[in-house]
Amino acid sequence: MRGTDETHDPARVSWVDSANGHADFPIQNLPLGVFSRPGEAPRGGMAIGERILDLASAARSGLFDGEAQTAAEAASGPALNPLLALAPAPRCALRRAASALLSDTARRSEVEVHLVEASDAIMHLPAAIGDYTDFYAGVHHAMNVGRLFRPADPLLPNYKHVPIGYHGRASTVVPSGRTVRRPSGQTRAPDASAPTFGPTQRLDLELELGVWIAQGNRLGEPLSIAEAGSRIAGLTLLNDWSARDLQAWEYQPLGPFLAKSFLTTVSPWIVTAEALEPFRIAQPARPEGDPAPLPYLWDEADQAHGAFALELETLIQTEAMRKAGVAPHRLGVGPATNLYWTMAQLVTHHASNGCGLNPGDLLGSGTISTPDDTGMGSLLELTRGGKQPVVLPNGESRTFLEDGDALHLRGRAVREGFVSIGFGECVGVIEPETA
Amino acid sequence: MRGTDETHDPARVSWVDSANGHADFPIQNLPLGVFSRPGEAPRGGMAIGERILDLASAARSGLFDGEAQTAAEAASGPALNPLLALAPAPRCALRRAASALLSDTARRSEVEVHLVEASDAIMHLPAAIGDYTDFYAGVHHAMNVGRLFRPADPLLPNYKHVPIGYHGRASTVVPSGRTVRRPSGQTRAPDASAPTFGPTQRLDLELELGVWIAQGNRLGEPLSIAEAGSRIAGLTLLNDWSARDLQAWEYQPLGPFLAKSFLTTVSPWIVTAEALEPFRIAQPARPEGDPAPLPYLWDEADQAHGAFALELETLIQTEAMRKAGVAPHRLGVGPATNLYWTMAQLVTHHASNGCGLNPGDLLGSGTISTPDDTGMGSLLELTRGGKQPVVLPNGESRTFLEDGDALHLRGRAVREGFVSIGFGECVGVIEPETA
Repeated sequence: MRGTDETHDPARVSWVDSANGHADFPIQNLPLGVFSRPGEAPRGGMAIGERILDLASAARSGLFDGEAQTAAEAASGPALNPLLALAPAPRCALRRAASALLSDTARRSEVEVHLVEASDAIMHLPAAIGDYTDFYAGVHHAMNVGRLFRPADPLLPNYKHVPIGYHGRASTVVPSGRTVRRPSGQTRAPDASAPTFGPTQRLDLELELGVWIAQGNRLGEPLSIAEAGSRIAGLTLLNDWSARDLQAWEYQPLGPFLAKSFLTTVSPWIVTAEALEPFRIAQPARPEGDPAPLPYLWDEADQAHGAFALELETLIQTEAMRKAGVAPHRLGVGPATNLYWTMAQLVTHHASNGCGLNPGDLLGSGTISTPDDTGMGSLLELTRGGKQPVVLPNGESRTFLEDGDALHLRGRAVREGFVSIGFGECVGVIEPETA
Repeated sequence: MRGTDETHDPARVSWVDSANGHADFPIQNLPLGVFSRPGEAPRGGMAIGERILDLASAARSGLFDGEAQTAAEAASGPALNPLLALAPAPRCALRRAASALLSDTARRSEVEVHLVEASDAIMHLPAAIGDYTDFYAGVHHAMNVGRLFRPADPLLPNYKHVPIGYHGRASTVVPSGRTVRRPSGQTRAPDASAPTFGPTQRLDLELELGVWIAQGNRLGEPLSIAEAGSRIAGLTLLNDWSARDLQAWEYQPLGPFLAKSFLTTVSPWIVTAEALEPFRIAQPARPEGDPAPLPYLWDEADQAHGAFALELETLIQTEAMRKAGVAPHRLGVGPATNLYWTMAQLVTHHASNGCGLNPGDLLGSGTISTPDDTGMGSLLELTRGGKQPVVLPNGESRTFLEDGDALHLRGRAVREGFVSIGFGECVGVIEPETA
């Protein structure tokens, strides 16, 4: 699929009133997730305004036909992996059918019985994550961080040739809202000869996009760059919480380990590749002098349409701010075009050694930062390694995160002539370490 | 459980004749795995000599009672995760019951109907791996490799304080016997300014032990070192196939990625903690001058019993050797006591940040090498980075692995007064890259 259809029509409105003008979930979005109400079994749903279309109950009642019904049935279980394992066509059919039903007032009574209030629902992970991989494609983040440690030579020689990434921990990925317990670990003070063990003193966020994988590839069989785009089911916001002091001590020579694997928070809705179609834009041209990607990473169509017009934002609200009714404070905002590689390039590279990607696998983009202070994706960058505190509206300041801090990520797809869509909540509140 | 019982009695023999004197699977072993015959559903089994006790059919027929029956039922599905999720007691009960039944000639006719020929069976992974983590606890390997790249300072400052590890790729772990397709990837020749993409020219093995996790810990709640030992369901052999040229180019700054995630081979049988009980030995004292482990990693009982008396061996048989009937050639043999940390220390460290470990998770120990040439766990070490070829019995030589080479790992637990037990096959044959 390439291009837009009636589901993207900006004139289309829903009989679900809360959807019209909704910041995240107007009828043009229709993201996929897994929800339950207390005492109920988790199952697939589609967000529409402040409500959720229960795909399991809709499938049972025969609300859909043909391929749309196939997709709804695949979304009826506690994880969307069976839906992600389908070819794109049934997911597109489900989207078109749901968009028609939710905009056709004549069908309202028949459909409304399958809607639940989002405020009554708990959100779960949308899929059982087989493997989680985190990339490092935010070039300004790599620069900003590199500059702190290697001022003369911030980017390593491989950066502009290889999409750098590492394997993450699937078991510690959680949906928005789960508390972030401050991790303990080994750290070594700059002037100490030996490490000590205790709670991290440099707890940080990392603003990332996540990619949910649809159909993958067979073990041993790479995916071409031309195929890779179709393996992206959709995107999510991802906060790769990081303990910088643990990271600095442990990461040589095998990379980040426990500094990252205590928790990763994702927004619980898969904003589908279909919903994002109007927001596809050209990958920005590389700066003069940068190497061209090797042929296995190069595809004209991907360069022309492989980036996304997304605005990504980080906000903090301390406990004192919450108690005083002070709204979350924006730490930064910036565009997703600050990624050096397209999502399709990340997928192709990942499978280039024959590594098997599977439906429900999750990729992180790497931290997305602006080159300047307006949209840093981590406090490490914004505070220059903890040296320049951020002052908050109520007079508090932060170098790294403190207990009680709530950290929000927001994301919004924006393009003239189209209705903006968003990702929903991606929040975590810091709790003290285990006693 | 600590100590030995009647299941370890060296005088105990089985009415399964092939078990008595079997190098790997005498009645004192009884490892757990998942098998199927062509057209059948995979289910749990227990190896006994050249046969497999079908735990699913035994459970259905009511061969076991009480906790042993609970365990056999949990082993009846296509993966042993439900069995691993149980407390140790039912697994111990199953072991004791199976040992009694397989040694009691009076029960033979009743039990024999549940035995299948191992030669008729395909072995699968014993569990669905939630997450796979690879450590770097083989201190001589770290030294040998460090010496190649940093002769003056082979071990990094953190090595003797932190159990170094990284997250691996669960989707690419396969049971013994699956072919190893030569991966392609980016490499940069030493004198080149830019990388190229193509099949690895430096394909290597890594001899490791794997740990299968039983009950884990809840996300956010660390495991004490005193608890950690009981979370080890058993051990396996693990070959962490590695593409050294990809690794050298990609690994900075986030660690190994595609150089490792094309395939990891394990022996398909879980040699249980219970079976290994007689082979527990003291962790060797650290060399004079080495730091003591931090308190969260220190437990007297673990130091006294946390290591294993295992001999680990690597063998190669090239295609030409196979055609000429030349037996596999030993590349090296050495003890598992060349690990700097106990398995319990690895488990405790892994959970120390609150990372959730789950039943069926797999940990690799890191490559286990001797300080000298007798038991190098990789060709990188044995050939000094590819500079000193190994000469094989038929006159061929190898620096790294070539297409058609079969690489075998073997492992054997040996202690005077006890019957030796082994791990079974852990083999992979190298195939050319995807055309």
